[in-house]
Amino acid sequence: MNSRSFASDNNAGVHPEVIDALKNANQGHVIAYGDDPYTEAAGNKLKRIFGGDVEVFFVYNGTGANVLGLSSVLDSYQAVICADTAHIQTDECGAPEKFTGCKLLTVPTADGKLTIEGISKHMHGIGFEHHVQPRVISITQATEMGTLYTPMEIREIADYAHKNKMFLHMDGARIANAAVALELGFADFTARTGVDILSFGGTKNGLMFGEAVIFFNRRLADNFKYIRKQGMQLASKMRYISAQFNAYLENDLWRKSAQHANAMARLLASEVEKIPQIKITLKVQANGIFAIVPPEIIPAL
Amino acid sequence: MNSRSFASDNNAGVHPEVIDALKNANQGHVIAYGDDPYTEAAGNKLKRIFGGDVEVFFVYNGTGANVLGLSSVLDSYQAVICADTAHIQTDECGAPEKFTGCKLLTVPTADGKLTIEGISKHMHGIGFEHHVQPRVISITQATEMGTLYTPMEIREIADYAHKNKMFLHMDGARIANAAVALELGFADFTARTGVDILSFGGTKNGLMFGEAVIFFNRRLADNFKYIRKQGMQLASKMRYISAQFNAYLENDLWRKSAQHANAMARLLASEVEKIPQIKITLKVQANGIFAIVPPEIIPAL
Amino acid sequence: MNSRSFASDNNAGVHPEVIDALKNANQGHVIAYGDDPYTEAAGNKLKRIFGGDVEVFFVYNGTGANVLGLSSVLDSYQAVICADTAHIQTDECGAPEKFTGCKLLTVPTADGKLTIEGISKHMHGIGFEHHVQPRVISITQATEMGTLYTPMEIREIADYAHKNKMFLHMDGARIANAAVALELGFADFTARTGVDILSFGGTKNGLMFGEAVIFFNRRLADNFKYIRKQGMQLASKMRYISAQFNAYLENDLWRKSAQHANAMARLLASEVEKIPQIKITLKVQANGIFAIVPPEIIPAL
Amino acid sequence: MNSRSFASDNNAGVHPEVIDALKNANQGHVIAYGDDPYTEAAGNKLKRIFGGDVEVFFVYNGTGANVLGLSSVLDSYQAVICADTAHIQTDECGAPEKFTGCKLLTVPTADGKLTIEGISKHMHGIGFEHHVQPRVISITQATEMGTLYTPMEIREIADYAHKNKMFLHMDGARIANAAVALELGFADFTARTGVDILSFGGTKNGLMFGEAVIFFNRRLADNFKYIRKQGMQLASKMRYISAQFNAYLENDLWRKSAQHANAMARLLASEVEKIPQIKITLKVQANGIFAIVPPEIIPAL
Repeated sequence: MNSRSFASDNNAGVHPEVIDALKNANQGHVIAYGDDPYTEAAGNKLKRIFGGDVEVFFVYNGTGANVLGLSSVLDSYQAVICADTAHIQTDECGAPEKFTGCKLLTVPTADGKLTIEGISKHMHGIGFEHHVQPRVISITQATEMGTLYTPMEIREIADYAHKNKMFLHMDGARIANAAVALELGFADFTARTGVDILSFGGTKNGLMFGEAVIFFNRRLADNFKYIRKQGMQLASKMRYISAQFNAYLENDLWRKSAQHANAMARLLASEVEKIPQIKITLKVQANGIFAIVPPEIIPAL
Repeated sequence: MNSRSFASDNNAGVHPEVIDALKNANQGHVIAYGDDPYTEAAGNKLKRIFGGDVEVFFVYNGTGANVLGLSSVLDSYQAVICADTAHIQTDECGAPEKFTGCKLLTVPTADGKLTIEGISKHMHGIGFEHHVQPRVISITQATEMGTLYTPMEIREIADYAHKNKMFLHMDGARIANAAVALELGFADFTARTGVDILSFGGTKNGLMFGEAVIFFNRRLADNFKYIRKQGMQLASKMRYISAQFNAYLENDLWRKSAQHANAMARLLASEVEKIPQIKITLKVQANGIFAIVPPEIIPAL
Repeated sequence: MNSRSFASDNNAGVHPEVIDALKNANQGHVIAYGDDPYTEAAGNKLKRIFGGDVEVFFVYNGTGANVLGLSSVLDSYQAVICADTAHIQTDECGAPEKFTGCKLLTVPTADGKLTIEGISKHMHGIGFEHHVQPRVISITQATEMGTLYTPMEIREIADYAHKNKMFLHMDGARIANAAVALELGFADFTARTGVDILSFGGTKNGLMFGEAVIFFNRRLADNFKYIRKQGMQLASKMRYISAQFNAYLENDLWRKSAQHANAMARLLASEVEKIPQIKITLKVQANGIFAIVPPEIIPAL
Repeated sequence: MNSRSFASDNNAGVHPEVIDALKNANQGHVIAYGDDPYTEAAGNKLKRIFGGDVEVFFVYNGTGANVLGLSSVLDSYQAVICADTAHIQTDECGAPEKFTGCKLLTVPTADGKLTIEGISKHMHGIGFEHHVQPRVISITQATEMGTLYTPMEIREIADYAHKNKMFLHMDGARIANAAVALELGFADFTARTGVDILSFGGTKNGLMFGEAVIFFNRRLADNFKYIRKQGMQLASKMRYISAQFNAYLENDLWRKSAQHANAMARLLASEVEKIPQIKITLKVQANGIFAIVPPEIIPAL
């Protein structure tokens, strides 16, 4: 029997409002590489959402956002602590190691969520040159298993990180699903709980392409423009990422989309639960469902 | 006095046909990551253009296309020979070195064009372990200086490369401008002249984002899917790159756009030539103009 | 309570025979970088030991031997499967990731020994571009826990590797202790059991510095000379590594030294067992002892 | 006609005093990895020579010293400015690019010496994310062409570097030859002229193996122990490097050896000058001779 998700969020299309925004942004010449009014507006929207004192950079995709965000605070002899189910560990074809040179130290988890207990198993050999030095804790919200961290849990991990001179990174590929499920604003479980660096996703929630890397500690962003360019993630015609984010953040488009996705996941789960051979293995919190499905009924699904 | 180009091609917008294509592609679910009918169609169009026996991969941008294309044939102790004006040398913030680990061996040129004589200055230390081993010759068509290689010149460099067990890479960020200026088809100065790997650009000629890496020797592409993913250049919703290429390659959109750009460059050049203080330093062949402009008249321009 | 080894083998000095060999090699000029009679002789000795058809390269240290040996068969999107106690995972400060760009996929083990069952947990996602692709299985003989693989066990792992188009790497930092404990020749559990690449250690068994990377599949060594130089492990005055190996391999110096170390370990273990508070946790097979020691008696030890 | 040096300094053997020092250091157990009295003594000797406030790390070889020293102050989007004849550019098989990810920006020179004029040609694009950012100027003393920088010239380059927020690195593989030729102490053209990081060589002047990386700005050394370990340059039995340096720095062994080498170079030059077909192309300042030699007489030499 296999445990698998039912589909990829990336098979879906793009919101009509996003297509419209792209069309509307297609007016005349603007300066390339981000020095344009669309990018300024999108950055300002994100700054307002996250409480002002942040730095925002747009990149192409989630792997780029994660790897380059991590790269901005890592030297190659340092390490990232993450769940063994983390996207950076399982689904980025080793891009973090390739680009940062760092080791990922993984923590086995049942539900995709790191705990202080799990993290602390890797907190040895500090100052010992034969060991990689833990420098970043990376969590995913909502997790790859569809579960959620509470703000309190995130605060606890952030405090632990900072007490140990480490940074807290959040992979927010499904951050909108998390916000809707938690009935909280984005800042409530990021800026206000001690997250240092956030991959703010949009593609899995109805954008065409584009993610944002957000630094809550602005000093960490000092060299990010070079890291983004060298990391092959600087979009020449950046207005077409920014314009998508402008549409996404206006009129609660992000919220409506995530609410719909979460509702669909719950609906699917409730239907699936009626099938006696299938067992939902994790509580459906955001927009992921994990179930044990006997192989003979997979074709039917 | 400064020698500078007048503007970046990336300040321009996107063809209305491309916006339409994006809108039309926005229909229902398709499989993510390139296993969709839009990508199949775009790949087939490029295969027809280049004579069939090629492999096509879409990526986000030109730096990604160049670096990953090069990466597919390089070990880190090898080297790339290129002009000292090459985009990979001057404008990619060291992405080639970072991602491949390789050294770039540069050849000083007046007009951005490599010659066998210039290349051969780096052909020493072969088999000597203290030296990096030249493995790729990289040329740009049209060059960063706006000049063009003739098919004969490319054939000569390709033959030299192959005779020395090297590969020929072409940065085709402005390949459409070159094709129009040469009054040739794309294959006439790539597939038919011995190019092994091509970065086929579109963004500078009216696409929103997206470039293609084309392998004329299919065996070289065996591992490219992993290189693209690890290189953070795999678009999840790939149909929105492919759909742009479908529009671009239909109805000669690429040609009309490049013809217009080249004509504008010639017009600008002819107007500029009337200004006695300005001296056009290189013959305008494609869509780039290089001129010596006295600083006092730059603000007026 | 802590589980720790009693001391590092690297605190010990160097065999007097090795010092003598260095002195004797200090005669006049020889060609640098390995093209000298001492290196030829040492290579020939190792070829005889391992059955002839091998390639031998000397490097400075064990981390260099492991990382560069692995590097010779890895592309950065590939992965190494190893025990979570492997030296390459725990004691090389991330050098494998830094230099190869690859991910290490670890298998939890009680005794430091990989099993097919443990390895096979990582054998998924083959051909799937989002996953790193397992390419090398790395085992350590004797293991970091002081245990030993039998030739049969190694053959089984080698067959599994080759069946899956992978290579088998052995970290032989303590290979002499293993040979003595197994009462076998070096080739009996390397060349004859399907090992592809071996780090043949000497420093932990009485050499001053220097290890050998041995390729049992000579084709894998084609580019190693460049990898060694770029990996900063090419000794200019190589005769002073080779001369040590000549002494080490003559008159059974390696065997006597390892026999002594193993006997001392057994003696220590038998004495330690008399201390009621200490529990030997793993059977003492080679020259490593692992015991649970109450913290209050550590100072006394 | 070819321009070539007559021989490699690495073909020579090792001073008998160095062999004796190795023998004398071979007494009992000391702590591995550098926490031993020999290493403390050698570090103290170097601190006295260089004026106290320095950090000293021993590594295996010159490539390791250069690459890791550079690595300690470089992010991958930064660059090193060096002569096109620099060892790091021509003779390290791309190790600097591989390990740091950085580009080397080369300056053509006739005599191997950088000038402010040559350096300043690369000082553009500062703050511009498409360009690598110059961060280190690297000079070699004595140069690869056998020439010498005066203390005044070094001070000028150091001031230029610091004014531009860069560091000055010196490859001192032949620093003893330089000191003897200049009739100066080591500190007179390093610590006292603004050098930040020095590769202090010994192997080319009679040591068996081992170089020192010396930081004149101690803060730059904060993470070097990790860089050295991850860079595969941490010697487990470090006392055998340190003991060589102790002998080398005592009783002026380094000076006598370099004086002899320099005198031999002058003698060779004066003999060679008598051969009418050979033309010495650069003034013999240290221990290198560069001459134009007709091919037909190379075999005779």
